[in-house]
Amino acid sequence: MEPCSRTTQEKGTPCDLQDSLFDDTVLRTMNTDKCKFAMKGIQYPTPGTSLFARPLRRSDYDKGFLQLLSQLTKVGDYSKEAFEAQFNSMQALPGMYYVVVIEDTSTATLVASATLLIEHKFIHGAVIRGRIEDVVVDSEYRSSSLGSFLLELLTCFSEEIGCYKITLDCKLKLVGFYEKFGYNNEGQCFLTKRFKD
Amino acid sequence: MEPCSRTTQEKGTPCDLQDSLFDDTVLRTMNTDKCKFAMKGIQYPTPGTSLFARPLRRSDYDKGFLQLLSQLTKVGDYSKEAFEAQFNSMQALPGMYYVVVIEDTSTATLVASATLLIEHKFIHGAVIRGRIEDVVVDSEYRSSSLGSFLLELLTCFSEEIGCYKITLDCKLKLVGFYEKFGYNNEGQCFLTKRFKD
Repeated sequence: MEPCSRTTQEKGTPCDLQDSLFDDTVLRTMNTDKCKFAMKGIQYPTPGTSLFARPLRRSDYDKGFLQLLSQLTKVGDYSKEAFEAQFNSMQALPGMYYVVVIEDTSTATLVASATLLIEHKFIHGAVIRGRIEDVVVDSEYRSSSLGSFLLELLTCFSEEIGCYKITLDCKLKLVGFYEKFGYNNEGQCFLTKRFKD
Repeated sequence: MEPCSRTTQEKGTPCDLQDSLFDDTVLRTMNTDKCKFAMKGIQYPTPGTSLFARPLRRSDYDKGFLQLLSQLTKVGDYSKEAFEAQFNSMQALPGMYYVVVIEDTSTATLVASATLLIEHKFIHGAVIRGRIEDVVVDSEYRSSSLGSFLLELLTCFSEEIGCYKITLDCKLKLVGFYEKFGYNNEGQCFLTKRFKD
């Protein structure tokens, strides 16, 4: 069976959902009226001409996923098998990893990605919380608000599925960007201990 | 079958590991020579007289786990069934949640807890990273270095299982404490968006 593409999904053709990291039915059906992108007439899964937003797929190694991530941080040149093994590890933890990518279907290349990570907590009434991770937009697409679209989409989604809060860490120069979407510095400091590069 | 207790584990008596959030064999066997607590002669699972460190158990609702957490933040007064449901959700995601608690066996009460959360990443060679969450020590035990012990234990453990880095967020007044264990502020800011209290 073919992976789920824009064409198969729009036509309702059966496709291999197992190729997707998660089932995006909630993303497709949630109320986005409060989102700025919706006010601009943009909706998931079509944020722009020839652009198609969707869950990360096992087959995305061949669509430049690692090259895209390398615009964010060090990625390393690892094999398709290693990618698929990591994908399988994440897919085996349902409800935890939501990696949404945007593909330019005219070039069959990924041009943006963002991750929502869900964490179960025993505090605040035994709830879940969200974390935004690894937001990246290809340098040639940075004027097209795809980062804002993915950030808002995953932020709304985290509220939709019941998160009591969502957090992220970012460089100081990006604080103003995230504040526009309701994120605030509440005085917490972010500390890191590194074991390897 | 009984839950795994200090007595059953020391005697090698069969006990119900399913009651534990995770199997702590790695914690029991890892090399802690570099840890300050080991230099002081302290080892997992016995950080002090009548103190027993171990994974969180499904039965810990009755040992004051929520009362302990409430010394850290808002917890809410939820039912044992809600606790067990959250415990089951976390146990169903193997390799992700490591909640280690310390029980005072003389009172059958939990007196400290810390959580290590593991996240799979596609960056840095398709690795895992760790996050320290919800470190709390009962107010009557705060002079006994149990927070340091749990922090170091989980930090060493995260390196042992292959994390390329470990992070945490904390109040400004605690930065100096965490720096003593090799955590550094690398200039990242921590932002939060809240949906409910």
